Amino acid sequence: MKLATLKEGGRDGTLVVVSKDLALCQAVPGIAPTLQAALDHWEEMLPQLQAASLSLNNGAARHARPFDPRACHSPLPRAYQWADGSAYVNHIELVRRARGDSMPPELWTDPLMYQGGSDSFAGPCDPITGLREEWGIDLEGEVAVITGDVPLGSGVEQAAQAIRLVMLVNDVSLRNLIPNELAKGFGFFQSKPASAFSPVSVSPDELGDDWRDGKMHRPLTIHLNGALFGQPDAGTDMLFSFPQLIAHAAKTRDLQAGSIIGSGTVSNKQGGLHGSSIGNGGVGYACLAEVRMYETIEHGKPQTPYLKPGDRVRIEMFDQRGRSLFGAIDQQVMHA
Amino acid sequence: MKLATLKEGGRDGTLVVVSKDLALCQAVPGIAPTLQAALDHWEEMLPQLQAASLSLNNGAARHARPFDPRACHSPLPRAYQWADGSAYVNHIELVRRARGDSMPPELWTDPLMYQGGSDSFAGPCDPITGLREEWGIDLEGEVAVITGDVPLGSGVEQAAQAIRLVMLVNDVSLRNLIPNELAKGFGFFQSKPASAFSPVSVSPDELGDDWRDGKMHRPLTIHLNGALFGQPDAGTDMLFSFPQLIAHAAKTRDLQAGSIIGSGTVSNKQGGLHGSSIGNGGVGYACLAEVRMYETIEHGKPQTPYLKPGDRVRIEMFDQRGRSLFGAIDQQVMHA
Repeated sequence: MKLATLKEGGRDGTLVVVSKDLALCQAVPGIAPTLQAALDHWEEMLPQLQAASLSLNNGAARHARPFDPRACHSPLPRAYQWADGSAYVNHIELVRRARGDSMPPELWTDPLMYQGGSDSFAGPCDPITGLREEWGIDLEGEVAVITGDVPLGSGVEQAAQAIRLVMLVNDVSLRNLIPNELAKGFGFFQSKPASAFSPVSVSPDELGDDWRDGKMHRPLTIHLNGALFGQPDAGTDMLFSFPQLIAHAAKTRDLQAGSIIGSGTVSNKQGGLHGSSIGNGGVGYACLAEVRMYETIEHGKPQTPYLKPGDRVRIEMFDQRGRSLFGAIDQQVMHA
Repeated sequence: MKLATLKEGGRDGTLVVVSKDLALCQAVPGIAPTLQAALDHWEEMLPQLQAASLSLNNGAARHARPFDPRACHSPLPRAYQWADGSAYVNHIELVRRARGDSMPPELWTDPLMYQGGSDSFAGPCDPITGLREEWGIDLEGEVAVITGDVPLGSGVEQAAQAIRLVMLVNDVSLRNLIPNELAKGFGFFQSKPASAFSPVSVSPDELGDDWRDGKMHRPLTIHLNGALFGQPDAGTDMLFSFPQLIAHAAKTRDLQAGSIIGSGTVSNKQGGLHGSSIGNGGVGYACLAEVRMYETIEHGKPQTPYLKPGDRVRIEMFDQRGRSLFGAIDQQVMHA
């Protein structure tokens, strides 16, 4: 089952069921007006949503219309929780080295996670706007899940059962604001502007074998200004699975239905700047900070700039037959 | 105007208008079913809510019923944003000294703020449950505001106009989890379990002169197991006003209607352990960490324990005539 949210209809948009091939969609006002409403009553609504999905995929839906990702908001235009892990430890190591920070050994056993702002997400094709170039605008390509209710103290098994939908994220980061903010000790705030999510969210059963062990096992494809910039595999080097990240988040509190848990920037271990570059057969990067770190190590300073007005970021994921699973996040940076 | 949310009616509860004396309330389903719905359409709904409030206070409401704080959830049972500042710099200094951290000079000019979990608040009279005593359970008495929409880059004036409602908070903290969590660099997560808010939220105009310069100017009254534990003045030593905190939060992103911004633990500068204690004419404390810090300075180690099962915390605020403004947060710690 694939679900998306059209912008029309108010702050929470309008829930639509989307066909497997992302060609068609249909609103389901008789079931749930919004994705949050569906998540609030998931057990009751799931059979009806599955029936609507089946009907749409069989060509039997009477009110089907073409699916346009540009008409979409993020699946949850605003959410009650966005908690982003950092499960690709290669990324943590590189970014911390770029900041001059060391790598505490407990990060190999205890997940890193920050509480993100969730009240005002960007849509998947919305511009990245209002941000100054000197703040160091970076993309971060990630995978995320939307959960059902997860009671305080839930274990990994229980957390796995609570995963409702999978999607992609561009967790935009302001790299030049991060060091001062983290030095104050309270974590990210101003350095994390609005994230955008893929137009389509997909139930784990729909993903077949590409979803297993609580991870997505497909490359995350990143284009920067039309050129392939990265295709790291989301299932490789992910030290903590989504169920582990969810259980971590629920250690001291309940997570309510509609909580979004992120993987952190997808990142694979590679052999330095040469070995990691797409042109040399590497898998590239899901953020600019990583290539800048490799450049710093090998050339003494970063050479690739952060994003500037006009730059375009595209983040998507394809199945083994090359079909887009979640639609594309496709954002252009605008002048502030 | 005073607004509250009864638990009945689903995850977001039921919005009620409350009389000035907190004796009566009335649901307003014809205006807005929930507080978030009212905030989403505030300009349109405000005149209707004010009319309902006037009618209730004049004894003309036909469906008025007794107001019972124990039937209340927090005004927003779940919110799209809970961003907590730390505006009482005396508290920051004491707590950082208790942790062995220094006080960076920029904290006097740049507000500290963390992104809190907002998907699952506790009700004002709900137990504090599921938490282990060894985690170091502490109360934190604070003031908070609920905002309307605040566009990215808003200044202090614009932020001031966006303040919709004022309320109190118990920002429960797990002191013994904080040092390791902050050492990882991503801020609080597991160390901040569910916060609880006062049963009643109040519009600034209703607070008269007690609300001025973007601050509440009344003591925050804290009882611990029935004994007065603190009554620091919320308007004294608040280095950053609510409009300043809101503008800080909106520097790099939009804040959507229903965002909650907290003051941080209310704390007044006082003369050490002796001078600060209630028994010696001091104003006491709005959290246990502060008295433990004074004890450490003067006796080499803390003597007051953190909260244990059975302990009861009561947080409220009275006007000059001794009338409760927001109703009381009244929570008992339960065995995990």
